[in-house]
Amino acid sequence: MKAIVPYKKKGGKSRLSPLLSPSEREELAECMLEDVVSTLSEAGVDASIVSDEGLNVVLNKIIAKSAEPVLIIMADLPLIRSEHIREIISSKEDVVISPGRGGGTNILFLRDPSAFRVDYYGMSFLDHLQIAKDKGLSLKVYESFYVGCDVDEVDDLAELLIHGKGKAAEYLRSIGVSLQMTGGRVRVKR
Amino acid sequence: MKAIVPYKKKGGKSRLSPLLSPSEREELAECMLEDVVSTLSEAGVDASIVSDEGLNVVLNKIIAKSAEPVLIIMADLPLIRSEHIREIISSKEDVVISPGRGGGTNILFLRDPSAFRVDYYGMSFLDHLQIAKDKGLSLKVYESFYVGCDVDEVDDLAELLIHGKGKAAEYLRSIGVSLQMTGGRVRVKR
Repeated sequence: MKAIVPYKKKGGKSRLSPLLSPSEREELAECMLEDVVSTLSEAGVDASIVSDEGLNVVLNKIIAKSAEPVLIIMADLPLIRSEHIREIISSKEDVVISPGRGGGTNILFLRDPSAFRVDYYGMSFLDHLQIAKDKGLSLKVYESFYVGCDVDEVDDLAELLIHGKGKAAEYLRSIGVSLQMTGGRVRVKR
Repeated sequence: MKAIVPYKKKGGKSRLSPLLSPSEREELAECMLEDVVSTLSEAGVDASIVSDEGLNVVLNKIIAKSAEPVLIIMADLPLIRSEHIREIISSKEDVVISPGRGGGTNILFLRDPSAFRVDYYGMSFLDHLQIAKDKGLSLKVYESFYVGCDVDEVDDLAELLIHGKGKAAEYLRSIGVSLQMTGGRVRVKR
């Protein structure tokens, strides 16, 4: 089982800039990647990190020549647990899609990768559903609160502080990021 | 099996006001309630609607004298499905908590309600975990993307439009609310 993890090494996570400096954002991104990679490893899956530049071209090249199942998983899912990975890769369906907030695809599992083509960016969840349908592939939506939490914005950090148990949550706490109730709502402050 | 559904009849969902008029917000809230009640009914559970005013006092009065299990479920969970309800009420644990975004508790299942006390508002998810621990009750976190989607803000409507199949999603589409890609992000527009 091969897992592909797209990752932006430099200058990513710009929407966290209201709270974190560029080097802190890089550090957090690296911690999240480590959380994802170690969760994959717990589930017996090896991770290949690829650059997220020209993601669709890169991934479609890889899957076109893949004879074995492929798991594509985002690097910013610090709440993911090994049970999620095990459940997804043991699904019977040709394609398993796990949605993120705002129409994203946080995990895509392809039993026969060469039969599919990926279309990330935008509302990729709906696009991937359509591609599976067009290609006559059986499909499962794997819906999970934890898998659905990709960390892009300051509000997302609240989820990491509330539910996180890994390196990314620990790092965030170590630099003094914490939760605060303001007007009946949870906010992230520093 | 009794389900209690707290509901604000008038003037709720004020954070949707950038997009919806007061009467539209009421209509949407009613559609969401109907989606929740019909999902409960599919799972064989009768719903009692209670006012959300002084919620903790109201609920703690009810559960103090409940000899049977109680399911407390929010009225703004339009993506909920009967499988969720069935899985939650068949759990072996004393307490099942399903988190919402921002530290909320979207569903709380109490096998022995009189042994518990609820503490909604604020970071109720963490508070409820602590209460279960303090009272020596066994606990399960039931995490679900769909159960976790409570609709409070304009951005939440995107989830309803992307994943919704019930009355609330239908209503939203009928008044011309739709999705739009702006700067690589999904936005709700009208």
